[in-house]
Amino acid sequence: MSSQVTIKDIAKALNISASTVSRALKNHPDISRETKDAVNELAAKLRYKPNAVALSLKNSRTNTIGVIIPEVVHYFFSSVISGIEDVAYEAGYNVMVCQSNERYAREVINAQALDSNRVEGALISVSKETHDFNHLMSLEENGMPIVFFDRAPEGLDVDKVIIDDRKAAYNATRHLIETGCKRIAHLAAPLTLGIASERFEGYKQALKEYGIPFNEDWVVVADSFELAGDATRNLMHLPSPPDAIFAVNDMTAIGAMKTLQRMSIAVPQKVAIIGFSAGFFSDITTPTLSSVDQHGYEMGVEAAKLLLERIEKPAEGKHKTCYIDTHLVLRESTRRKS
Amino acid sequence: MSSQVTIKDIAKALNISASTVSRALKNHPDISRETKDAVNELAAKLRYKPNAVALSLKNSRTNTIGVIIPEVVHYFFSSVISGIEDVAYEAGYNVMVCQSNERYAREVINAQALDSNRVEGALISVSKETHDFNHLMSLEENGMPIVFFDRAPEGLDVDKVIIDDRKAAYNATRHLIETGCKRIAHLAAPLTLGIASERFEGYKQALKEYGIPFNEDWVVVADSFELAGDATRNLMHLPSPPDAIFAVNDMTAIGAMKTLQRMSIAVPQKVAIIGFSAGFFSDITTPTLSSVDQHGYEMGVEAAKLLLERIEKPAEGKHKTCYIDTHLVLRESTRRKS
Repeated sequence: MSSQVTIKDIAKALNISASTVSRALKNHPDISRETKDAVNELAAKLRYKPNAVALSLKNSRTNTIGVIIPEVVHYFFSSVISGIEDVAYEAGYNVMVCQSNERYAREVINAQALDSNRVEGALISVSKETHDFNHLMSLEENGMPIVFFDRAPEGLDVDKVIIDDRKAAYNATRHLIETGCKRIAHLAAPLTLGIASERFEGYKQALKEYGIPFNEDWVVVADSFELAGDATRNLMHLPSPPDAIFAVNDMTAIGAMKTLQRMSIAVPQKVAIIGFSAGFFSDITTPTLSSVDQHGYEMGVEAAKLLLERIEKPAEGKHKTCYIDTHLVLRESTRRKS
Repeated sequence: MSSQVTIKDIAKALNISASTVSRALKNHPDISRETKDAVNELAAKLRYKPNAVALSLKNSRTNTIGVIIPEVVHYFFSSVISGIEDVAYEAGYNVMVCQSNERYAREVINAQALDSNRVEGALISVSKETHDFNHLMSLEENGMPIVFFDRAPEGLDVDKVIIDDRKAAYNATRHLIETGCKRIAHLAAPLTLGIASERFEGYKQALKEYGIPFNEDWVVVADSFELAGDATRNLMHLPSPPDAIFAVNDMTAIGAMKTLQRMSIAVPQKVAIIGFSAGFFSDITTPTLSSVDQHGYEMGVEAAKLLLERIEKPAEGKHKTCYIDTHLVLRESTRRKS
């Protein structure tokens, strides 16, 4: 029967040593990805079963990294996950993802689940509702290394991989100014979220530097495809409507674009638009959407690398902040000059 | 210190009984979502720590459901996850998601991870490369209930929640015929994947019923945004190019649309296009994309409900197949008549 398949059987079939098979099954870093794949495939096919009790006593590791993200549906977060997975699988770890759905209470449950599932480290981007971080910090106090990415707790000493949101927003706004826009609106996320207030600051800084007065009527908290519709209609009905929109993310930018088109307002001729994320979405709209590329994949790679470092060797005192570069992807929605 | 916070402290602060707090912390089904949220929030804030050893001896459950999907970036799969989560959280379970990235070897590792993380049940949609299902079936043999969704193993007696892919593809193709298209191409997924061959059969069946000869030059295996580009260019350079494209998913349909537009071929006037999934994407393109709505959210809801049933009470012999209805969402990309 299947339970009688041994490591030796697998080794013989693949013409490799039993110790290689054994290490491959344990995802040992010395064994190549190819060999691990071959061993795992054959082990699955032959229904090889390790002596589970012995194994769990000897090796209580789960080789799993937990990830908590706000929403998987955002292209940005799915790019980050790809980066995390490529590093993790290469190093013999599996990745499990939990969604907070932007809710604090669910994030608390996610954190408990990472704990009770005994993952070996966590990569976390906090929800919009999260202002208290005890549920996350207590994981670290219990010995589970944590690296935050994109959205990190303000003012706490933690390991994090982030972008310079203020600079990226400054660059996006400056680009609108340089293409001739003078009345620039900003569709923002709730300003209690650190990245949202940073982007708002970058927007204001660009206006200031170019001597454009700040008009608070042109700043609206609207950070989804749905919310962008009303916000854009209201903006365009102002006595002095904007000639450009800088949106806090691509979904919001596309919601604004679709609304303007429904109002027969030409993009970019009447209103230029720039988003934030440069996801797959931004390339399929007509006109295509200019956006800030946050390099989600690289953010995932760097966050996973830092976490694996911490799993091997806990941080001694000082935590690390790693910045990922951003750049503007200029497409049709801001092409006013030509 | 924080370790001295007890269940009684939490009960007192919230003015509820200690037994309610205790059951809320265990996600007991008798306790309302609101109470659980309040208790969990306060417990996190006060850094309440249960006696971990006692708890794990008494209650070795993880209250976690594992999900294995091909790719999180597909809108369809993220809708399914939302449905799964809404049911699971309501019932006091957390959800952890693993991606196979359409690779068999990674799916094997995902399955091992669900096992070693002791999840209580699994919801699985298999990768394109998976033709052998031992790694999944052995989870069930080891006592972990499994429900497959969307992509289920062919010819095995399993619990599954699926759509009638053949009928949905038949309806999509028939719609193209009814709008006057006569030369209908099909961009397919690899036909070794069950849902791909079912959709191909549905396409052929519609042609046959309407007396349109099947032309194998018009069937190309191309199932991504990138692959659709070359496939569409080749199709349009045939001596007799198609006047419509039925694509196996929305990403592929949008890749075809963008390519046709780059070739200055009008959609839908010269070539009509219909996709499959009716995700968020299909509503933001110009023209908007007609598509088959697979109701991913409901699929997730039904799959999670069936799994929870199996966790409470294992299947006795007979497994269940549950069908989710589909319907056509008609948008601009097939609007030729008006």
